[in-house]
Order: sequence, then C-alpha cells, then structure tokens
Amino acid sequence: MLTQDYVHGYHSRENQRLQDQAGTLVELLHADTIYSAGSLVLEAGCGIGAQTVTLAQRSPKARFISIDVSAESLAQAKERTRRAGASNVEFHQADIFALPHDDESFDHVFVCFVLEHLSRPAEALVRLRRVLRTGGTITVIEGDHRSAYFHPESSAAEAAIRCLVELQERAGGNALIGRQIYPLLKAAGFDNVQVTPRFVYVDASRPELVDGFTRKTFTAMVANVREAAIAQNLLSKDEFDAGLKGLERTTQPDGVFCYTFFKGIAIKGGAT
Amino acid sequence: MLTQDYVHGYHSRENQRLQDQAGTLVELLHADTIYSAGSLVLEAGCGIGAQTVTLAQRSPKARFISIDVSAESLAQAKERTRRAGASNVEFHQADIFALPHDDESFDHVFVCFVLEHLSRPAEALVRLRRVLRTGGTITVIEGDHRSAYFHPESSAAEAAIRCLVELQERAGGNALIGRQIYPLLKAAGFDNVQVTPRFVYVDASRPELVDGFTRKTFTAMVANVREAAIAQNLLSKDEFDAGLKGLERTTQPDGVFCYTFFKGIAIKGGAT
Repeated sequence: MLTQDYVHGYHSRENQRLQDQAGTLVELLHADTIYSAGSLVLEAGCGIGAQTVTLAQRSPKARFISIDVSAESLAQAKERTRRAGASNVEFHQADIFALPHDDESFDHVFVCFVLEHLSRPAEALVRLRRVLRTGGTITVIEGDHRSAYFHPESSAAEAAIRCLVELQERAGGNALIGRQIYPLLKAAGFDNVQVTPRFVYVDASRPELVDGFTRKTFTAMVANVREAAIAQNLLSKDEFDAGLKGLERTTQPDGVFCYTFFKGIAIKGGAT
Repeated sequence: MLTQDYVHGYHSRENQRLQDQAGTLVELLHADTIYSAGSLVLEAGCGIGAQTVTLAQRSPKARFISIDVSAESLAQAKERTRRAGASNVEFHQADIFALPHDDESFDHVFVCFVLEHLSRPAEALVRLRRVLRTGGTITVIEGDHRSAYFHPESSAAEAAIRCLVELQERAGGNALIGRQIYPLLKAAGFDNVQVTPRFVYVDASRPELVDGFTRKTFTAMVANVREAAIAQNLLSKDEFDAGLKGLERTTQPDGVFCYTFFKGIAIKGGAT
C-alpha cells in the first residue's frame, strides 16, 4: 500500500473486513497458487498480511519476503503470520517503486489487491519485473467494482458503489483495474500472460457467501467509506444509507449478488 | 420467442449472429448438458434452432421435442437440424403459455435465451413445470447485458448497450434476466436450484473469442438494433455509431471484453 490515502482506511474495522474477505475467497483466488520447495517469492504490498498466511501455508517449503510501505501494517502482518505458525515469511518495509532488491533476485512475484491503489500500476509492474529472475512468474490479483451487480436492482446501491470508485480515484487508485490486468502485464514486458476471471456468484443456496462475501466483504467495504463519501459531498447521509440498504436487500432469500476478481499469471521471458 | 417484437429481429443477419454465437459458446454453455438414452426433452422456444443441433448431437440417444411460436423460425430450425444430420428432434409450433402437452410428459425441459424475451418469465416456468415429470430437470440459460464491461471504457458503447436493454424492455422482455434465474426457478416451485455463471473473458490472447464473441456476437447484437434505436430516438446516428466504435476498440491488442451468461439447473420435486 503506497500512501496514507489508502482508500479503505487503516482502521481495525477494515482489518476485520480484509480478514473476512481472505477467509471466504481463499479457495477461489489462491487454490492454483502453489510455489515449489526452495523458491523465493516476493509478496509486494502485503498490507496487514490478509493473503500472507494463506500464501505461506499453501507453499510451506517456499520462502516469502513480504514487503509493504506501511510499518504499522507490516507489524500486524508479522503478528498474524506468527500466530498462524508460518515461519517461512520475512517482512521488510519497502516501496514497490524503490525496491532495494538486486535484479533477478526472486523466483516469483505475487501482488494481490495492490495495483488498484497505485497511480502508476504499469510502472510498478516494470519495477517488479526487474527483481524477478528470467523464467520466473508474476501473479496479480485484482477486483473490479464495475463487476458488481445484483438482484433486486438498486440505483441507490449503485450510487454508493460509485462513491467507493470515486474516492479510490481521488486517492490516486483505480477500483476498476481488474479487467486491465492483461494489457498491464503485456505493457510491462511480461510473456505468456494468462488472465482468468474469478466470479463470486452469491444466492441464497450459498449462505456462507451471502454472509461472508455480500455482507461482510463487499457491503462492509462500501460501508467503510460512508463518512468520507458524505464528508466529500458525494452523497447525502440518507442517500448513502439507502445504498447500504439496497446492498443488504440482496442478502434476502430471493437476492443475488455478483462480483468478479481477475487473476493474471505471466512469465518474465528471455527478452528485456 | 413469443412475438413479432422479438428485439433481435427475424432477419438473416440476426440468424448469422445466432449461429456464430452458438459456435463460439457451445462448450461454455452446453458442455455439462447431456441427456441419457431414451429420455424425452422439451426444448421450449427453439427459435431458428441455434442450440437445437448442439443439444441433439450431444445427447444422440435422447429424443427432443423443440417448440416455438414462430412458424418461420421453426422451418429454419428444421432445415438446419436436417442438414446437420440430427434425426432425434421433432418440431412443433406451440406457445409456452399454452403448451398442448400432457402433465408430466417430459423427462427434462431446456430453455435457452427465451425468458429474456417474455413479459411473464415466472409464469412461463410454472407452465413448463407442469409438463415436466416429477424428478425431471429444467435447464435455463440466459445472458445479462449488465455483465458487459470492457477496456478501454467507453461511455458511448455503454449508451449503445443501454439501447438494447431499453428496446428489449419496450418489447416486453428483460435483457438483465440472467442474474434472476435463481429466484425465478425458486418462485416457480423448482427444487435443488443451482445456478452457475458462465463468464466469457476475452483478451488478445484469445483471438477466436475476440472475433467470435466480442465482434460477431456481442457487437453484432448491438449493431442489430441500430435502426430501431435511432428510429425511437434513443440515440442519434452519430452517438450510436460512436458506441459501436467503442465496442470495436475493445478488439484491439490491448482491449478486454467481459460478458457473463447464467445457467440454472433445477429439479421438479415431489411437492406441487
């Protein structure tokens, strides 16, 4: 995470959300990410370590170096990883745009929910490519808030979601970056770019997702920018709350909620 | 298809589009639909038979009765099925809302791209449920035009897509019905409703989808309502053409196009 303007905030409520999100989505997002024994992996922008424990536990014989610009986030990531008993992770405070590592020093790079917060995501990928060895892989996971739609429809809910997109843009990020992973990785010089959508489909037959995703991940994320959206006059209090109500409505037995993450995997080929 | 107001029109250009669509998407939509030997399947609203040949060939030992309200469409479906050498299909002109069949006379019911054109889709499902035997399955496939988003973004393209949605609504249909398959099937009394999204993700690494889906299926479908949209003053000629240009732009090497179909499978349980 690059700045204190991190749109989701650095509060403990947000931390709870990141934790819930990681728990619910872990299979969907991470099941196909397993690093071989002895490989050295850079997790760039680990934040509070919401993905770190999963990464480390799924590849127990790989070694991870997880970096973030925020010392406070790193401290939490460290504590969380220690509690989970994962001993194959080192944490370092570092900026993606000023990586202290040598060229080609990692076998793999992993970046999850980070590019969306950067004003220069393409450049970030170029910087990450430098420290990746030739033949190594980069994995990028991002959401795209335009992929959120639901039943019943609610223009109030859509307006509240647009606040999140707008605030993230004002903070220099892009909440619609998921669909751009392919062109971003190509532009940064990666080869064999393969992007797959990870669709979160939620209806009443999947109560764990109704609660874990619709309510505790997505709606919680929107609720989290309520004060900022009202303070910046994007919506009135009543309008924003109507939006939250519209989202909550989709958790009823006849409700449906859709969201899509995008995961890209690419290789650093021989050419520079 | 219920009326002459069928939004996509009954022209040969549209028929070509339906054929292209079926060819490109056949695996994604139909790979998991196979009916056992001897079973009798009702294909309700077969149109020009775009799905009929696929259905019949994937389940060569099942028997199909394919119905449509349009005699003209049926004639084409029949000819197409004959040319493909599929001999396990009978065609009958019939209205989903006035099915001439006995109660519980089919082992399975299949409905693809039909509910989107009906003003009373829930009632259609109740009518179809009547002719399905207890324990039999219904399969419903629909798109949802809200699921279309792309890179680069284009407000002109979004406006053109909204024309399609609006025209379909004026004709009594709903181009956003895909997400509603779960509540619709539940409300019609079906059990074990399972809906899965079928995401069409298109980037330059998948040239057959760039051409077969983005260009020849989706953009062609939007282009198909150009005259109607302009005639009904939804957009000016220039605005609509800018929208088509915006869609075409997504077929460039850095472009990405996303669309999602929804497939629901449910059972007619013991209770009425």
